[in-house]
Amino acid sequence: MPSSFGSALRVSVFGQSHSEAIGCVVEGLPSGLLVDMDALGRLMARRAPGQGPWATPRKEADLPRIVSGLNADGATCGAPLALVIENTNTRSGDYDELRRVPRPGHADLPAQLKWHGNQDVPGGGHFSGRLTAPLCAAGGIALQALATRGVRVRAHLAEVAGVRDEPFEALDNSPDARARLQRQMDRLEGRRGLPVIDDSAEGAMLAAIDAARRGLDSVGGVVECVATGLPAGMGSPMFDGLENSIARAAFGIPAVKGIEFGRGFGAARLRGSEDNDPYHLEGGRPVPSTNNAGGALGGLSTGAAVLFRLAVKPTSSIGRPQDSVDLVSGEPARLGVRGRHDPCIAPRAVPVAEAVCALALLDSWLAFPPEGAQFSLGEGRD
Amino acid sequence: MPSSFGSALRVSVFGQSHSEAIGCVVEGLPSGLLVDMDALGRLMARRAPGQGPWATPRKEADLPRIVSGLNADGATCGAPLALVIENTNTRSGDYDELRRVPRPGHADLPAQLKWHGNQDVPGGGHFSGRLTAPLCAAGGIALQALATRGVRVRAHLAEVAGVRDEPFEALDNSPDARARLQRQMDRLEGRRGLPVIDDSAEGAMLAAIDAARRGLDSVGGVVECVATGLPAGMGSPMFDGLENSIARAAFGIPAVKGIEFGRGFGAARLRGSEDNDPYHLEGGRPVPSTNNAGGALGGLSTGAAVLFRLAVKPTSSIGRPQDSVDLVSGEPARLGVRGRHDPCIAPRAVPVAEAVCALALLDSWLAFPPEGAQFSLGEGRD
Amino acid sequence: MPSSFGSALRVSVFGQSHSEAIGCVVEGLPSGLLVDMDALGRLMARRAPGQGPWATPRKEADLPRIVSGLNADGATCGAPLALVIENTNTRSGDYDELRRVPRPGHADLPAQLKWHGNQDVPGGGHFSGRLTAPLCAAGGIALQALATRGVRVRAHLAEVAGVRDEPFEALDNSPDARARLQRQMDRLEGRRGLPVIDDSAEGAMLAAIDAARRGLDSVGGVVECVATGLPAGMGSPMFDGLENSIARAAFGIPAVKGIEFGRGFGAARLRGSEDNDPYHLEGGRPVPSTNNAGGALGGLSTGAAVLFRLAVKPTSSIGRPQDSVDLVSGEPARLGVRGRHDPCIAPRAVPVAEAVCALALLDSWLAFPPEGAQFSLGEGRD
Amino acid sequence: MPSSFGSALRVSVFGQSHSEAIGCVVEGLPSGLLVDMDALGRLMARRAPGQGPWATPRKEADLPRIVSGLNADGATCGAPLALVIENTNTRSGDYDELRRVPRPGHADLPAQLKWHGNQDVPGGGHFSGRLTAPLCAAGGIALQALATRGVRVRAHLAEVAGVRDEPFEALDNSPDARARLQRQMDRLEGRRGLPVIDDSAEGAMLAAIDAARRGLDSVGGVVECVATGLPAGMGSPMFDGLENSIARAAFGIPAVKGIEFGRGFGAARLRGSEDNDPYHLEGGRPVPSTNNAGGALGGLSTGAAVLFRLAVKPTSSIGRPQDSVDLVSGEPARLGVRGRHDPCIAPRAVPVAEAVCALALLDSWLAFPPEGAQFSLGEGRD
Repeated sequence: MPSSFGSALRVSVFGQSHSEAIGCVVEGLPSGLLVDMDALGRLMARRAPGQGPWATPRKEADLPRIVSGLNADGATCGAPLALVIENTNTRSGDYDELRRVPRPGHADLPAQLKWHGNQDVPGGGHFSGRLTAPLCAAGGIALQALATRGVRVRAHLAEVAGVRDEPFEALDNSPDARARLQRQMDRLEGRRGLPVIDDSAEGAMLAAIDAARRGLDSVGGVVECVATGLPAGMGSPMFDGLENSIARAAFGIPAVKGIEFGRGFGAARLRGSEDNDPYHLEGGRPVPSTNNAGGALGGLSTGAAVLFRLAVKPTSSIGRPQDSVDLVSGEPARLGVRGRHDPCIAPRAVPVAEAVCALALLDSWLAFPPEGAQFSLGEGRD
Repeated sequence: MPSSFGSALRVSVFGQSHSEAIGCVVEGLPSGLLVDMDALGRLMARRAPGQGPWATPRKEADLPRIVSGLNADGATCGAPLALVIENTNTRSGDYDELRRVPRPGHADLPAQLKWHGNQDVPGGGHFSGRLTAPLCAAGGIALQALATRGVRVRAHLAEVAGVRDEPFEALDNSPDARARLQRQMDRLEGRRGLPVIDDSAEGAMLAAIDAARRGLDSVGGVVECVATGLPAGMGSPMFDGLENSIARAAFGIPAVKGIEFGRGFGAARLRGSEDNDPYHLEGGRPVPSTNNAGGALGGLSTGAAVLFRLAVKPTSSIGRPQDSVDLVSGEPARLGVRGRHDPCIAPRAVPVAEAVCALALLDSWLAFPPEGAQFSLGEGRD
Repeated sequence: MPSSFGSALRVSVFGQSHSEAIGCVVEGLPSGLLVDMDALGRLMARRAPGQGPWATPRKEADLPRIVSGLNADGATCGAPLALVIENTNTRSGDYDELRRVPRPGHADLPAQLKWHGNQDVPGGGHFSGRLTAPLCAAGGIALQALATRGVRVRAHLAEVAGVRDEPFEALDNSPDARARLQRQMDRLEGRRGLPVIDDSAEGAMLAAIDAARRGLDSVGGVVECVATGLPAGMGSPMFDGLENSIARAAFGIPAVKGIEFGRGFGAARLRGSEDNDPYHLEGGRPVPSTNNAGGALGGLSTGAAVLFRLAVKPTSSIGRPQDSVDLVSGEPARLGVRGRHDPCIAPRAVPVAEAVCALALLDSWLAFPPEGAQFSLGEGRD
Repeated sequence: MPSSFGSALRVSVFGQSHSEAIGCVVEGLPSGLLVDMDALGRLMARRAPGQGPWATPRKEADLPRIVSGLNADGATCGAPLALVIENTNTRSGDYDELRRVPRPGHADLPAQLKWHGNQDVPGGGHFSGRLTAPLCAAGGIALQALATRGVRVRAHLAEVAGVRDEPFEALDNSPDARARLQRQMDRLEGRRGLPVIDDSAEGAMLAAIDAARRGLDSVGGVVECVATGLPAGMGSPMFDGLENSIARAAFGIPAVKGIEFGRGFGAARLRGSEDNDPYHLEGGRPVPSTNNAGGALGGLSTGAAVLFRLAVKPTSSIGRPQDSVDLVSGEPARLGVRGRHDPCIAPRAVPVAEAVCALALLDSWLAFPPEGAQFSLGEGRD
């Protein structure tokens, strides 16, 4: 279905930019998970606007209200969990120009053609980036579930406007490299400001973003995400493999235009002898020595870190005038998008990437576990 | 489900490299399509092995038998269409080494861990590239259905081992560029040998492939695919958009490690004013002037060509010895994969990319049409 | 997924008896439907408690709030529609006995075993009949969509405690019978009190219900539902036919233990020559003369009224003491359920039957229309 | 999708009465199940035609060929299992009358209207009862999987033309009643001829069937099915409960017009104190004392036998002339169906009921197990 995904764990997102509320329903969560609302709030705060010079200064009160799915102890009870986030700024009346003149780079025009003008126009309607808030909340719960089993998911801003951060140490799978990767994740966890590993990257990124902002323009970036601690043999062949599921979910994040796993497009220029990950033994168990595959072969987890990168295009809403058309008069028109917009959306996409990664992985584990190693949280209080 | 995908058009692929047969079931095809078996054979021949120096010389008789889903006239009848391709080389006995020593870069080891040794080992089992034959057949029928509505799908070998073909003229959406794109597609349709637009690229690609083959090694590549003639407003927001569906299907092709739409990762380095596609009027209708978005915004088709690129890793099976482990003895082992293998699988992935593209697009059209513009083949003979 | 159903129209129900809120998300509604909140309120009022001596006197404010899915005009906009009904009586503390002693005839014990005691106990949690409120609201919107195409859905109380109402005139499909059926539906539409066609049935039904109530006991009944105005050829063979879909949805109503279409179990005692519906011509078109099939053959609509009956068991919660066990002490226990409960739930199941029927039929029409006759609401205001 | 069902175990049925082959694909089977082809053959023989005076004397060679999904040991390997049954009598040319004059009681006319005359007419096409052969084969494998965990599924002919067999002793759940039920199942397992528990019912049933046959007519019946040995807490609330899933699958059997669980429609006439199943302790565990609920409460298994009954209408194809219409001339027509047809289809529906029950239950167990008690076959040979 359009706005839902998942096999055993089903996430259904609802809402428009200016509807009364936005939110989501999550079916299939294992019971017995004590939801940590503070941790959820921290994750969502990383996505929220108004945190720094790269993001719109608009304030949102994005605390989700969990209206169902928990028992009296605050633990998941087996029933669908529903999250509601009230929209405070609903129904502005002054969007008539937007109805007439579709914004380049947005879904305005195709939505108009799809729904014959019934689509909800203001703020992008259901296509708004604001819809990543409930997705983030759902993913935050999945992250908490995965953490109980030792899984850790983390993303960073690998690139903004051509400025690169230090990459994750995840193409190597030696014990040393794995330790370095954990330290990179620790560092990101403790960081304020832009989510980068290398402090020195932040300044150049902020400068590029600021230059774009001053030019009434925007810049894009690359988000890199990693997940560690997964069992090998999770996932499935063909169309419900890890890559398929993560990709399907990730393209649900507005502005994502590409995804690659492990070496990704770089693998196209390697030889097989360079790209294949040989095996060695650790404690008697076979383990891939490198991780060019990004943690998945044939749709199944290898036990090495799941690693992927997302291409995030520059924010479409820019102040700089662009060519468009007036749908009512049938004449050419020029449009400079007013209001406050993020000159770079990539930083706020970082926690959303973690969220969709966690949802896709928890779903894979629940639906396609290594046989006999089902995800479970164990006994309840009785 | 693992080996099936689609919302209104459901493709379910079955078979292993050495099972009695492989094939697929396609549910949801519109009725009344006269299947052109010759055209289907031509598409499948492009995927078949043994066509040139880049591919394994093994011969296959891959003509699919359509055992159900057609009426006495050879037209689709509304019931599921089932395709069966017999396997002639089943059950070789000499795969004991493969059971013991998993091949680096294959799903051998994760499959072993997932199914506790019950997986079908020879030839990669259900993970074999051979399973793209039924996928290609299903896609070939989808291509024929789309062609009745003026849709054209074509892929080429954009890159092999770093050698580039001329790219599709699909990032521009002017009338001239669209005409040039059609001519590129014509040229590919008429071509024999490697599927490239620029004849001069073929020689360098073949040389690189041959060098890898002689070194008992392999090389990767990039496949670029385009679809023209789609209506605007097809697809859906969030998780069943065009990018989501194509990506989910494309990662079902073995060796694919990345996908990007339109400018893709390149968009991450552009400014919004460069990446946004402005609109102009053609015959009174708004049309994007450029196509950096690759034909989709917010999951919906824009009416411009759908354009994507797939990263294809180098063939994993190489003769060159690699480190692995012996699962029985628990000792390190060296493995050089014997037998004949494609030194580059990318050329054979070209028709498969067209097939999955067609399946994803026909499914999107059937399930999420622009409202009131449902895909239909019209009246039958009665 | 557990709490959702549908192919093209997906209904996902959330909430527990004592959670903060209950509600549902409906994906796939055609755009442009102006939701009539008054009509929705009237349908829901028929389901609400406290309407007569057969129902619990507890008051509920069940007005649903549509928090997303509508545009500024109040019309469906193509995005998922989300409905929220706040629960006013949440989290009572005195349910410890229920945790210890499961109620016979409820899901208390199997839920305890399924979720290891994490299930939400008070009021039956997610299994509560209260969850039919959002289902009713979703169905009410589907009813409004179907009404725009001339479809009418109506149910009545065919039987309570063995007392029978006049049955629907729907096993005959002559023009006269069809007119009589419409008059029966008119009568039900105008009626207050128990939803019966024959006024004289009401008294005996109320007497039987009252006798049960006085005996701290409960009675069951049969709900009969009919839908007219559907096109022929809607639905699909095998597992997504009309009967399959209606049955799947109807067993989602608590207390439903059986469903039959047309003659149903009675057909088991007829001969083929009696049960087959012959065809005659009306205005040049073939039409079934009788409707023993209940409007569906092979999963496809015949154009005659869809007709089905639901067996509704007596309310499980009764004051009369019953044998149970104390899960904590591991001893036998006696349990008389305290609080106010409907001595007969069947009357309140009548609008819910209409709701699930409408949802299943609209879904069938959207997903499996007669080819080329897709359900559509036509152009929007632009 | 139309011809497939299931959440974790997906069965996709293909074929038409006169297509080259019929069959099915089963995705999601646990790996490591050694398929017993002899047992499968015995189950399918019970469904095959030509076994007695109640069935058509036509011969079929219905041995399914498993073309994929097994490893070299004959055990399920994790990949989809595909079954093919060749059709020997394909494409007869003399069905022109059937194209013109639709058979009352069949899907001929609605299929014609749905697919504009593209439907496959001969023998009923995809709506043919012959399609229950692959369903039976798939169910037979599910039965073998369930048997490894102690689950037993059995159906009998509870009624034919009003003549009743002894019912299953499954409404009582005392240890004695459970033992009697097992003996009834033993008796059915050993029986030849009609599948009845009470030998004396057979004669009267055969007489009724023969009378119908001689009158060029047909009779209907009721099939009762039971499953024992399931864990409590399997299944799910609302729309994927045991009743929902079994009902959805069972209405995929042609001629089924009703289903009821436990007391079913009889419960509508009981009081709550009679219908509720009290609990007692057995070995310290709470167990329902009676089983009026038919083994499921709120969609979850109670641990008592799952019990349901199917209404099977009389065979639609009868020699006796009936009113129909000539679709070509637009005139009324009379039609007596020629050829050999079962005067009562209910006996052959008995193994099919077992098959769909097994498929629905195995799917429920795989997709919605009691948490932490996943269905698994354990380790493979490695």
